[in-house]
Amino acid sequence: MENTLSPLKTLAGIMRPALQNHLRSIIQAGSDFQTGQLPEMLSYQLGWTGEGAGSRAQGKQIRPLLVLLTMKAGGGRWQAALPAASAVELLHNFSLIHDDIQDNSPTRRGRPSVWKRWGKAQAINTGDAMFALANRSLLDLSKSLNPRITLQACHVFQRTTLQLTQGQHLDLAFENENQITLDQYWEMISGKTAALLGTAMELGALCAQVSRTRKEAFREFGLQLGLAFQVQDDILGIWGETEIIGKSNTSDLVTGKKTLPIIYGLAQGQSFSRRWKEGPIHPGQASDIARLLEDEGARAFAQKEADRLTKSALDALLRAKPEGKAGEALKELAKKLLKRKG
Amino acid sequence: MENTLSPLKTLAGIMRPALQNHLRSIIQAGSDFQTGQLPEMLSYQLGWTGEGAGSRAQGKQIRPLLVLLTMKAGGGRWQAALPAASAVELLHNFSLIHDDIQDNSPTRRGRPSVWKRWGKAQAINTGDAMFALANRSLLDLSKSLNPRITLQACHVFQRTTLQLTQGQHLDLAFENENQITLDQYWEMISGKTAALLGTAMELGALCAQVSRTRKEAFREFGLQLGLAFQVQDDILGIWGETEIIGKSNTSDLVTGKKTLPIIYGLAQGQSFSRRWKEGPIHPGQASDIARLLEDEGARAFAQKEADRLTKSALDALLRAKPEGKAGEALKELAKKLLKRKG
Repeated sequence: MENTLSPLKTLAGIMRPALQNHLRSIIQAGSDFQTGQLPEMLSYQLGWTGEGAGSRAQGKQIRPLLVLLTMKAGGGRWQAALPAASAVELLHNFSLIHDDIQDNSPTRRGRPSVWKRWGKAQAINTGDAMFALANRSLLDLSKSLNPRITLQACHVFQRTTLQLTQGQHLDLAFENENQITLDQYWEMISGKTAALLGTAMELGALCAQVSRTRKEAFREFGLQLGLAFQVQDDILGIWGETEIIGKSNTSDLVTGKKTLPIIYGLAQGQSFSRRWKEGPIHPGQASDIARLLEDEGARAFAQKEADRLTKSALDALLRAKPEGKAGEALKELAKKLLKRKG
Repeated sequence: MENTLSPLKTLAGIMRPALQNHLRSIIQAGSDFQTGQLPEMLSYQLGWTGEGAGSRAQGKQIRPLLVLLTMKAGGGRWQAALPAASAVELLHNFSLIHDDIQDNSPTRRGRPSVWKRWGKAQAINTGDAMFALANRSLLDLSKSLNPRITLQACHVFQRTTLQLTQGQHLDLAFENENQITLDQYWEMISGKTAALLGTAMELGALCAQVSRTRKEAFREFGLQLGLAFQVQDDILGIWGETEIIGKSNTSDLVTGKKTLPIIYGLAQGQSFSRRWKEGPIHPGQASDIARLLEDEGARAFAQKEADRLTKSALDALLRAKPEGKAGEALKELAKKLLKRKG
């Protein structure tokens, strides 16, 4: 039966609209402001208003979906985890608003980023408001769950935010450094990419009140998934075909971003490293230098790491014993995220 | 006995070192980072490290002191409110880091602001980390108080942060507007200045578990104190003597900041308003134009408002029935803050 929807599609089709409604209620409750444009700026970042509003501008919402699926796969009623799912999505968007300012990125999800529309000062402030709304959303867990669990969730959430800021700090600092170790790279992406995915899983598991062992396994799955995803992204950033990944076609070789293959290549101290130190790489040179980097083993190295992390993620998910349709959906989502080819 | 310390000096002398210790423990616990300079950036903002470190760079810490004094004046053990006091101080510092970026202010408490030392991208991130640490500190209330009170404190805290961002949003928006109503002005300073002082009082009262009526009165005191303080600051910003207030000697007339006397003057549509619209006021013209503004009644109007708010603050404090030495100290602090003359 070609038309039967997969567990992921079925559940996402039910969960996504509920999430959007919940997010709207958070933004509206936070907008007891009498004047000004702050609510509009928040809505814009969430893809609800302005030119280009709609599903692309709303983003893929993988993280809140992970929270809800984990709650259900842990035996809980997923609706009770909506405050945590919204919190994770708002935290993610807060970090995107600030990232775009820090990286000077004029676009986000196919349209002008918040700072490009309202200026950097207002955009910093909009991010701050989004972060406060994320925290407020999380507190609503206490409407369905007991106060101790809510407080635990708050602890997890603040630890995660600190890890995000540490990852971002390192990422920014790396721009001005030439020698970055693999340890530093792993620490950076652990904070910047993996922490929030681990937390999405952990919050879902915490809300479902699964055993400590299962909760740790769910979290581990999220962390390894995040690392694997980032390494894949790094590979695609150099050897990906732009039509498939749908990103801007500027190779990381051109932007000078210090991704895993590049850090590996620099550590070899061979031709690639010498070329890198000579100065910026122009778009026309990117494919030749990508080949050079591949010849020095960087692509194979990164692919091996991605495979190792992918296996490690799927192993952790098995250990977590996700239940029922939501468990199937989690496996499906993991495979979908990790199987993409550039 | 000339040498007897006042209740405020006695208590502040005990509370301030305890607060500093608690703040240090929060920053250290948040710094489970293996590499990078983020902990140093946080310490710098708090005045502990870097050139010029010391009491001036640490700021006056009025807000955390209000939390601790209120806890004690409400019959509680002030030490149990240290997590809330630190949270308030960290929230205040988070907002200062971002304010300085938004206003392009190169100095803070007599030395380079965080963005001036580490660049705007890193400074945005440092502010974000400081905010996460503020939230984390607040959660530690649950070590001494019951989880429901801790959750209530978290709710109050997020509401306050939203009010701060709304105030900041309006303040930034006013730069580009010529017609600002008095209502808009009050909304702006309610968020930007009064909210956090109200919250400092509310958190102290909440921790002390005083009655709802007293808690409201404590909060009201903080709000009115904040408004009165801001209006006084506005008056000093035009007619203050720089040696007394210790601020940079650039009049608000020169920077073009839309403070209460200026908004009042603009609404009169007389000579001051016409002059304002002609273009920037140079330092050499400030005293003449200050006199013009005074002749049109702006100073008297603002002073009347400041007096009304001061009375209202002191009335609220009486209704809150603050107890013992800490109660005396609160009254002393209020009078000290409100009696300063330019």
